[in-house]
Amino acid sequence: MPQLLQDVTRFDRYLSSRGRRAADATITDPQASAGYISFIYGFPDSASLPAESVLDATRTVLTDDPEWSLQYGSSVGVTVVLDAIREKLARDQGMTVPRERLMMTAGSSQGIQLLVQLLVDPGDVIIAESPTFLGFFDDVQNAGATIAGVPLTEDGIDVAALERTLADVQAAGTGARFIYTLPNFQNPTGVTATEATRRRVVELAREYDTLIVEDDAYFDLRFDGERLPTIYSLDQDERTFYLGTLSKTLAAGFRLGWLAGPSPMIRRLASLKTDGGTNIFGSYIAAEWLPREFESHVSQLREIYGRRRDLMLAALEQHMPEGVTWTRPDGGFFIWATLPDGIDTGAMLAQARELGVEYLPGTICYFDDEGHAQIRLSFSYARDEQIEPGIEILANLVASEMRETFAAT
Amino acid sequence: MPQLLQDVTRFDRYLSSRGRRAADATITDPQASAGYISFIYGFPDSASLPAESVLDATRTVLTDDPEWSLQYGSSVGVTVVLDAIREKLARDQGMTVPRERLMMTAGSSQGIQLLVQLLVDPGDVIIAESPTFLGFFDDVQNAGATIAGVPLTEDGIDVAALERTLADVQAAGTGARFIYTLPNFQNPTGVTATEATRRRVVELAREYDTLIVEDDAYFDLRFDGERLPTIYSLDQDERTFYLGTLSKTLAAGFRLGWLAGPSPMIRRLASLKTDGGTNIFGSYIAAEWLPREFESHVSQLREIYGRRRDLMLAALEQHMPEGVTWTRPDGGFFIWATLPDGIDTGAMLAQARELGVEYLPGTICYFDDEGHAQIRLSFSYARDEQIEPGIEILANLVASEMRETFAAT
Repeated sequence: MPQLLQDVTRFDRYLSSRGRRAADATITDPQASAGYISFIYGFPDSASLPAESVLDATRTVLTDDPEWSLQYGSSVGVTVVLDAIREKLARDQGMTVPRERLMMTAGSSQGIQLLVQLLVDPGDVIIAESPTFLGFFDDVQNAGATIAGVPLTEDGIDVAALERTLADVQAAGTGARFIYTLPNFQNPTGVTATEATRRRVVELAREYDTLIVEDDAYFDLRFDGERLPTIYSLDQDERTFYLGTLSKTLAAGFRLGWLAGPSPMIRRLASLKTDGGTNIFGSYIAAEWLPREFESHVSQLREIYGRRRDLMLAALEQHMPEGVTWTRPDGGFFIWATLPDGIDTGAMLAQARELGVEYLPGTICYFDDEGHAQIRLSFSYARDEQIEPGIEILANLVASEMRETFAAT
Repeated sequence: MPQLLQDVTRFDRYLSSRGRRAADATITDPQASAGYISFIYGFPDSASLPAESVLDATRTVLTDDPEWSLQYGSSVGVTVVLDAIREKLARDQGMTVPRERLMMTAGSSQGIQLLVQLLVDPGDVIIAESPTFLGFFDDVQNAGATIAGVPLTEDGIDVAALERTLADVQAAGTGARFIYTLPNFQNPTGVTATEATRRRVVELAREYDTLIVEDDAYFDLRFDGERLPTIYSLDQDERTFYLGTLSKTLAAGFRLGWLAGPSPMIRRLASLKTDGGTNIFGSYIAAEWLPREFESHVSQLREIYGRRRDLMLAALEQHMPEGVTWTRPDGGFFIWATLPDGIDTGAMLAQARELGVEYLPGTICYFDDEGHAQIRLSFSYARDEQIEPGIEILANLVASEMRETFAAT
C-alpha cells in the first residue's frame, strides 16, 4: 500500500504530545563521511581503535564467564564494569563513587536523555553553554523545554552571565531545572573551565537551588597542562550529576557511558531506564579491557590527538585569511573557528563538500538561531596527512567567500 | 555527607512529573538467582549460550571491519544488522520489511519504551492482555497512563472482551492508544493466539481506529504445531508495530532487538532514541553470526526448551495436588499455574526460597491487584535434572499451604 507509506500526516493523530514534539528525523549514516577529508564529527580516529586488545578481552570473557556475559543483567549495569569504572574514576578523576551512586548508560547520550526525563517538564528552562553539545537538543525538544544560553569565555562558562541568567530564569518562573556544562575541552569550542569557574558554578547552583549536569566526555584526552578537579568533586552538596563515556577512549561502538549522582536519583533513573541493562556483553569485555589496556591506550590517543591538534592549529595559522579567529584547546577533539560576520557557513558546506572537505556549521551547535559565521573543526578523525591540505582547501574557500561577501556589500 | 545520602525526599522537589511517577527502584541482580532451582526469570539456558560461535564471529568482525564495528553508528541501527534481521524476517516470519520501516533497539524492552513515549500521554489508556509482560508496567507508569486489561482464553486474547473494552475506553474518552499483545506463547501464560484471533484483533483495531503493538519475543521458539502468520503480516492497514529480539536466541547480553512499523513513525522514534545507536559492536557480531549460526542454533534451543517444557508438565502432573491447573504452551519459556483461591503465592515465595526453589508470583504480571493465587513457572533456565525435583518441592509446599488455608477456613 505505497500511498499509505507516503502519507506521513495520517499517523499524526496517534502521537503523544512528546511524539508530536519529536522531529521527523533525517536518518544519517556516519559512513557517508568516508569519502571526505572530514572535520565534521566527534569521531575517534579509526586507525587507533583497539581491535586486537578488544579481541583478546573478548576471548578471555567468553572463556572465563560465557554465562553471565551473554545473559540478562541489572538495569543500572553489571557489577564488574561498575567496579572497573569506579576504579578508573578514583585513579584518574580522584572521585570516590560508591556503587549505589553509579549507573551504566548507552554512551553519555543516554545519560543526558534519562536526566532530562527525570528533571524536565514541558515549559521548563535548562541553562547551558551557548554553543553546546548538539546531541543535547533533541532531548530538550522532546521534553518541550527550552535552553537559556550562557556564553563562554576563555575561562569556561561566563560566570557573571550565568548568575544573571539564573536570576532571570528564577524571576520568570520556577527557576532553571539544571545547568548543563562541559568543563573540559568543551564541545564545540574546545574551551576548558578554570578551577575558579568550576567553584563558582557550584556556588551559584547552591545559591539558586538548582542542579548541575557535568558532561565530561573528553576528560581523559588532555594534551597540555594539569588535570583540574571535576565539578562533581568540588560540589559538597550533591547537586552534580557526572557523565562520562568510553566512546572516546575504548570505542564508540560499545555504547558504554556512565552517570554518577545522588543514590535516590540513580534509583529513579533505574525505573526510567527500561532497556534490560546496558550492553552486558560489551560491559564484560570493557571490564576486562580497562585495567589491562586503558592507561597505555589512552596515552597513545593523547599523542595522536595532540599531534593532530598541533597540525590543525599550524595549518589554520598558515592558511586562514585575516579576520578569522579560532580557539586553542588543551585537549579533546575540537577547534572552534569564527569567520567574519556575514559569511554563512551553513550555505558554504555544500561547496566545501564539492571540494572534498567537511566541517560542522556553527548553527548546529546553538539551540537558537546563532552561529552562522562559525564552524566546528574536529581534528580527531581526519588522518594526519589530510589535515593541512583540508584546512588549506577550507581556507581558500573562506577567503573566496569573504571576497564575494564583502565585495558585494 | 552521609546524612544527605539518606535524605531521599530532599531530591523530590527537583523531579519532573515523569520523574515523580518513576518508582524508587529496587535494584535487583539477576545473578542472585544462582543458588536456587530457579523458575523465576525469562532467562535463556546458560549452558547453550553460543560462546564459541560468538567468539568466531567477533574475530571475523574485528579482522574484516575493525573500523566501523567500533565506531559510532546511526540511531536506527547499522545497515549490516538491519539487513540480517530483514533476511531473517523474510525467511522465518514471512515478512517483507523495507529498511526504512525497521530500527534496532536495546532488546524489545527499549522498543516498548520508545513506543510508549511516542504514543502515550498522562491519563491515556492502553489495552493489554491481563496478565501480561511485567517489563511493560514501568513504561506505562512512567508515562502516567493506565492499562485496561483483557483476559486470555485458550485461543489468545479474548476478542469479545477486547471489543467491549475498546468500546468502553472509547466511550470514556479518546479511545485506547494501542493494543499491546503477545500472540505467541504469551508471557506469562504461554497461550498462543489462533489465526482467527489475530485476524479479529486487526479488524477491531481498524474499527476502533487504534494501533497494535505485537511483541513477538518468543516467535522462534515453537516446539509444536505450525507457525502462524504474525499480526503485522495480517494487517493491511499499517496499524501494527512488530517487536522482536535476539535475547532468546543469540544472547540476552547483546541487548539487540528490533521494531518494525510505518516509516514516518520510525523517523519520529529515531528522534526519541538519543542513545547514539544500539550496541554497534554487538550489531556487527550479530550480523556475522545470524546467517551462519541462527538456524542450527535455534533448532538446538527448540529441542532443549521443548524437552524442559515436557519435563515440567510431567512433573506438574505427577506432583501437584488436585485443584491446581496449568497451561500447556506450544513454545516459549513459560507455564502459568493457578492455585486454589485463597493461596497467596507472593507470601509463599519466601518459604519456597528457603526450600531452594524460586518462581514468579502472579501479581507481578498484573497491572492491577490480581493474580494472588497464580504463579509463572519458567522452564527455560533451570537445568533438566532440576525441574522434576524443583516442581516436587513446590508441589509439596502448595499442598501444605492448601491444607493450612482450607483447614483454617
